[in-house]
Amino acid sequence: MGPGEGAIPGDCRNAYELGRAIAGNAWVLVTGGRDVGVMDAANRGAREAGGLTVGVLPSSDLAGASSFVDIPIVTGIGEARNYINVLSCQLIFACGLSAGTASEICLALKAHRHVILVEPRPETARFFESLDSARTHVAADTGQAIQIAAELLKKQE
Amino acid sequence: MGPGEGAIPGDCRNAYELGRAIAGNAWVLVTGGRDVGVMDAANRGAREAGGLTVGVLPSSDLAGASSFVDIPIVTGIGEARNYINVLSCQLIFACGLSAGTASEICLALKAHRHVILVEPRPETARFFESLDSARTHVAADTGQAIQIAAELLKKQE
Amino acid sequence: MGPGEGAIPGDCRNAYELGRAIAGNAWVLVTGGRDVGVMDAANRGAREAGGLTVGVLPSSDLAGASSFVDIPIVTGIGEARNYINVLSCQLIFACGLSAGTASEICLALKAHRHVILVEPRPETARFFESLDSARTHVAADTGQAIQIAAELLKKQE
Amino acid sequence: MGPGEGAIPGDCRNAYELGRAIAGNAWVLVTGGRDVGVMDAANRGAREAGGLTVGVLPSSDLAGASSFVDIPIVTGIGEARNYINVLSCQLIFACGLSAGTASEICLALKAHRHVILVEPRPETARFFESLDSARTHVAADTGQAIQIAAELLKKQE
Repeated sequence: MGPGEGAIPGDCRNAYELGRAIAGNAWVLVTGGRDVGVMDAANRGAREAGGLTVGVLPSSDLAGASSFVDIPIVTGIGEARNYINVLSCQLIFACGLSAGTASEICLALKAHRHVILVEPRPETARFFESLDSARTHVAADTGQAIQIAAELLKKQE
Repeated sequence: MGPGEGAIPGDCRNAYELGRAIAGNAWVLVTGGRDVGVMDAANRGAREAGGLTVGVLPSSDLAGASSFVDIPIVTGIGEARNYINVLSCQLIFACGLSAGTASEICLALKAHRHVILVEPRPETARFFESLDSARTHVAADTGQAIQIAAELLKKQE
Repeated sequence: MGPGEGAIPGDCRNAYELGRAIAGNAWVLVTGGRDVGVMDAANRGAREAGGLTVGVLPSSDLAGASSFVDIPIVTGIGEARNYINVLSCQLIFACGLSAGTASEICLALKAHRHVILVEPRPETARFFESLDSARTHVAADTGQAIQIAAELLKKQE
Repeated sequence: MGPGEGAIPGDCRNAYELGRAIAGNAWVLVTGGRDVGVMDAANRGAREAGGLTVGVLPSSDLAGASSFVDIPIVTGIGEARNYINVLSCQLIFACGLSAGTASEICLALKAHRHVILVEPRPETARFFESLDSARTHVAADTGQAIQIAAELLKKQE
């Protein structure tokens, strides 16, 4: 998860690397599916590494979908799809912050999903830790994020 | 699409055969994802034939999901997921009839999706034809259903 | 419930009369809230008779809302709002038929709501009776529709 | 908006006072509609002051609805209803914080709604200001919150 139009280059780079690593671990990538920002970068990374990508789109058709999405889920329910996005994930990586991304992190914590914040600002990390410290994780880089994810998935088995 | 708990054996047999044929054509199967009736049978058919299966679940967790679903989309929005189900399909096969199935066919026609009714009762076919005759198709068996689908997909390309 | 853009004059007349009678009985009117067809006519009738009107809109803002809606519910979830529409009603009146209206009737029956079809064509009535004969009711005119509704609500108390 | 089960007494007291003031201004109160915490308190306040109350429920029936809700909207879409909740409001008051409440504030800012945080902790205010400083407002008490709301509504006219 991460910003669309307003994503900064560092967030997209992290998302691309996470996409590659998710595919490398034979995990399935789930994103909001649009052709901008963190979503597009993560899908591109996973596609290039031979992974399977699912995009949960807000729109009622394929316009605006990332060309790197293999399985587009066309919801037609706008931003309400953020809820489906997080429920369909076993855990969430967050690269960067926007109102939309923050809503997904909150919905994820509410639904008892673990969230791994990648290179967050300290005050961002503290905010989500204040909502649910047990399920908010902080990673200094994408390598650490993948390591935390692998450990969490092992426990969920 | 088709009934869950109330499915009759003939509908499940058709769904199983369609699942196999969908996989055989390298198409992706999308269903409501539950472990009963037409949904479960179609997923079993597709899985056995080596296909990829997506299940758009009404529930907020994996309880009740078909074990033959590869990609569970956990919506948590109950029967409102019928809308997502049909929007995410390029075309719809309907095996059997129930209130839920009929709602999906109606939403599909409303969203301008083609619907192929497999072995429908004549009055059922007439009803949906009265809503949208151009997008309602009738197949005498699963073989004809797949043939109609292939022709429709060719035109959509 | 009833068609929007494609509504015929007779359906709108019935909807207007039902709106007036719903308000006259001090019931609350719930519709899809748009400014066309059966929705707009029902809201106009209820407003003129001093009733309270709720409109469950598909859009993410007030554009296209009927000016006779007192309480607009802005869902932003498109046609998936049909589900909310029927769940929020104690019973449903249907004036006319379209794919969207038929989806609402089906979702209503699936959710165990009673549906009163006002002046339906015989084959339409038979179709919905085949889905759930116990909850499908046929009214020859709006007067009979209101009478059936009053009896059903009495039993629900 | 505010916490349900985990609400603290101060948040409920603020919500009750806001409910009274909302009714006193002849505004319509919209909440998540459940019979706990901030939702229940706000509805009780508005009801006691003779106001009209709308509750956008997550459930598919009326179980768990506040008895102070006049117009229950039964969505059946779980936490995805948070989106409908904020879209249906002209502006949002937030009393207290939880993951669910934070998701609503984020969705509100994303949908360009103004949010008035009532007696927030400084770091909470700073977090939402970092997402959208122009639409995040801080009120020291309920009186100031109502004053800010009145000014914002005047500008929206």
